[in-house]
Amino acid sequence: MNEKERLSGYKGEALAAIRKAEVEIGDLIRITRNSEIHEGILIPRSEYGDKKHVIIKLKSGYNIGIRITPNTKIERTGKGTKPTFTQPPSLKQNPKLPKIAIISTGGTIASRVDYRTGAVRPALTASDLYSVVPELTKIAQLDAQILFSLLSENITPKHWTEMAKAVSNHILKGVDGVVIAHGTDTMGYTAAALTFSLQSLPVPVILVGSQRSADRPSSDAATNLIGAVVAAAKVPFAEVSVAMHESTSDSSIILHRGAKVRKCHTSRRDAFKSVNASSLARVQEQRIIMLTEKYRKRDLTRKLDLKPEFNEKVALVKFYPGMNPAIVDWYVKKEYRGIILEGTGLGHVGSFFYEAIRNAVEHNVVVGMTSQCIWGRVGMNVYGQGRDLLALGVIALEDMLPETATVKLMWIFGQTRDVEEAKTLLKTNVAGEISSRTLAEK
Amino acid sequence: MNEKERLSGYKGEALAAIRKAEVEIGDLIRITRNSEIHEGILIPRSEYGDKKHVIIKLKSGYNIGIRITPNTKIERTGKGTKPTFTQPPSLKQNPKLPKIAIISTGGTIASRVDYRTGAVRPALTASDLYSVVPELTKIAQLDAQILFSLLSENITPKHWTEMAKAVSNHILKGVDGVVIAHGTDTMGYTAAALTFSLQSLPVPVILVGSQRSADRPSSDAATNLIGAVVAAAKVPFAEVSVAMHESTSDSSIILHRGAKVRKCHTSRRDAFKSVNASSLARVQEQRIIMLTEKYRKRDLTRKLDLKPEFNEKVALVKFYPGMNPAIVDWYVKKEYRGIILEGTGLGHVGSFFYEAIRNAVEHNVVVGMTSQCIWGRVGMNVYGQGRDLLALGVIALEDMLPETATVKLMWIFGQTRDVEEAKTLLKTNVAGEISSRTLAEK
Repeated sequence: MNEKERLSGYKGEALAAIRKAEVEIGDLIRITRNSEIHEGILIPRSEYGDKKHVIIKLKSGYNIGIRITPNTKIERTGKGTKPTFTQPPSLKQNPKLPKIAIISTGGTIASRVDYRTGAVRPALTASDLYSVVPELTKIAQLDAQILFSLLSENITPKHWTEMAKAVSNHILKGVDGVVIAHGTDTMGYTAAALTFSLQSLPVPVILVGSQRSADRPSSDAATNLIGAVVAAAKVPFAEVSVAMHESTSDSSIILHRGAKVRKCHTSRRDAFKSVNASSLARVQEQRIIMLTEKYRKRDLTRKLDLKPEFNEKVALVKFYPGMNPAIVDWYVKKEYRGIILEGTGLGHVGSFFYEAIRNAVEHNVVVGMTSQCIWGRVGMNVYGQGRDLLALGVIALEDMLPETATVKLMWIFGQTRDVEEAKTLLKTNVAGEISSRTLAEK
Repeated sequence: MNEKERLSGYKGEALAAIRKAEVEIGDLIRITRNSEIHEGILIPRSEYGDKKHVIIKLKSGYNIGIRITPNTKIERTGKGTKPTFTQPPSLKQNPKLPKIAIISTGGTIASRVDYRTGAVRPALTASDLYSVVPELTKIAQLDAQILFSLLSENITPKHWTEMAKAVSNHILKGVDGVVIAHGTDTMGYTAAALTFSLQSLPVPVILVGSQRSADRPSSDAATNLIGAVVAAAKVPFAEVSVAMHESTSDSSIILHRGAKVRKCHTSRRDAFKSVNASSLARVQEQRIIMLTEKYRKRDLTRKLDLKPEFNEKVALVKFYPGMNPAIVDWYVKKEYRGIILEGTGLGHVGSFFYEAIRNAVEHNVVVGMTSQCIWGRVGMNVYGQGRDLLALGVIALEDMLPETATVKLMWIFGQTRDVEEAKTLLKTNVAGEISSRTLAEK
């Protein structure tokens, strides 16, 4: 390891202080500044890091930055400890178990913590899976593939296309289910994308993430992964769904429909919620408890209908008081094909937006309306403003999530260039993204 | 009433069909088309209405549009019935009761349903209040003011300024509390705006809305209004809050803090939720049940600190996969002072956004990060990408709602032109918008 690697990313005062203390990345260090004392593992900085802070990983799992001043003292107190992996009883696959493909795209769940540096880096090999989670050998025969090593905020529609194709390839090889390990940040968007691009699925496709990395005592990585593999192997339905903690307890994993799921908390393990729809099933002690009777059944003879293309010329625009309607004109000028408005309440925007919307519709831009309330259904026939918007050509998107509607319109313009066909598809329930109206909404 | 008023808004085939049937706005009509029969009150169309649909208000309270075809038959079955208001026992104010100002800004709660036309129009006079909700005479002496008649999606920062000044005027006249009737669509934004612009309040300011108009059997207009007036008269705290149904039952009204409240359902009466904070109090059978011990006490001798100015050059930008970072450049070019990012998870955007953010910060645009998860707290020191964004100059906005952060930054740039002062204010808990970190977040 050369000096650059050892002190990776540090510069200025921070680099000078580390050099002076003769510590390196991965060392357990103590930083004393006046009366404050912090102890943790020295971890690398990013290329955007400033010159003044040294970053350490605390015992709690959190990283903190400490500003270096002339009277800051750094000393080494030990070496970062390497983890000791337990080898599984046998790496031999049991041919009687269902065949499950695991596609890794990155994120916390697919990350292997570098215990020396304390840094969480996306990387997961097939054999890692068995060594980290030995239980998996008893549930399924695994075929692991690293497709990407991306934090999910960097995943774009192009990656959705790749993922859909990868799933299709595994299905053609005859697997009984597919698990996709994914960062949680945009997992809801990807779940919607795969729901539209993988139609007529013969087997289940389960997305799984983790809210706490494997180096945290409260990590949900192993329990979620086991839950997802159990689901892929055993659920009776062939749908795209998301497997995550149902509550803060480790005892049950819940499966959400791909087009109706949303990340609703920054850090809780039960961050994912089904919105305007019931969840599909619960996994408890490796058993499946169904929560709905409406689903597409597994059927290995069914032929997958792969439609993996997306068009990024679709914008999600969240409305707020004082918003400049010229933003809509900008998208029109940039030749966007569609705009999903995240309006207020039952599906409204201020009347100062009407002219821009009229202009967009006249330029053949498809404009759909969802609600920033998130829960509930747009109802554009209740008030005059809603009817005005419908008359302008805005399409009411029922109880579709704004995020799902955006993904759907990107997908639609990946399938067709025809505006009328696009509008019809947008209004039609293609893959469970629109729930039928409940009889008695309270 | 001339013909134009009678058939207001109708044109083309729809107008011809109505003329032929000799019916007018407000008539109870039956429309028969093939085997379908619809009955309801004929209501006016908006200026954007098409030529083909006739709109009727059904008994259920919902409006529907029926397409006129050559074989559609319209007939009058009766006159729309006018409501019979019960006069309150006495309109004389009781001088022993607390003095409450009611400022009406429009919206469903402040709307008077025109029972002849079935149309809901924003309008509420002082005497209407007593006649519609006679209970109010026993709770407070009311001083009602119509400030605006706006559907809340048309409310802009300029209206927040007017509202803050109107509240201040009432407080200078010595009221014991202020109630603001407001449309629910953007009531959360207005509540945040008033929280920042009405500092050091001597008395409570209670915003109240209604999710169902007074002509609906399930209307929450009266119960919410009574709850708000009780709250304004009796709560021990002097804060800006929102009074709405706590559940779907009419039995309790909950008071949410102005900077921590959000509309989370399009139609439910309990649509408003306190996010990342406890509610302030509950109103049950006209009694106040406190839900927190932390609040600013009422004190009529305290001097209100009125800071009513807002600057609209602040954008809320919700991130999604495939988003075009050039939108950030556009705001910079348009000389926006601030951008609130609604990032993913703990406060992330794709690295393809970094260059645009760096450019914005270099142009002295204040960039703040919130999370589209809505619940939880941004934590930008956990992953490398978060630290990268901090290094670029992005400010982590803790557990502030994206909507509240946007309003706050508009308010900040109404107070100062100094970028460093703006950044400091944005990070500081000014009026309860940032909750202190809980000891044990699960």
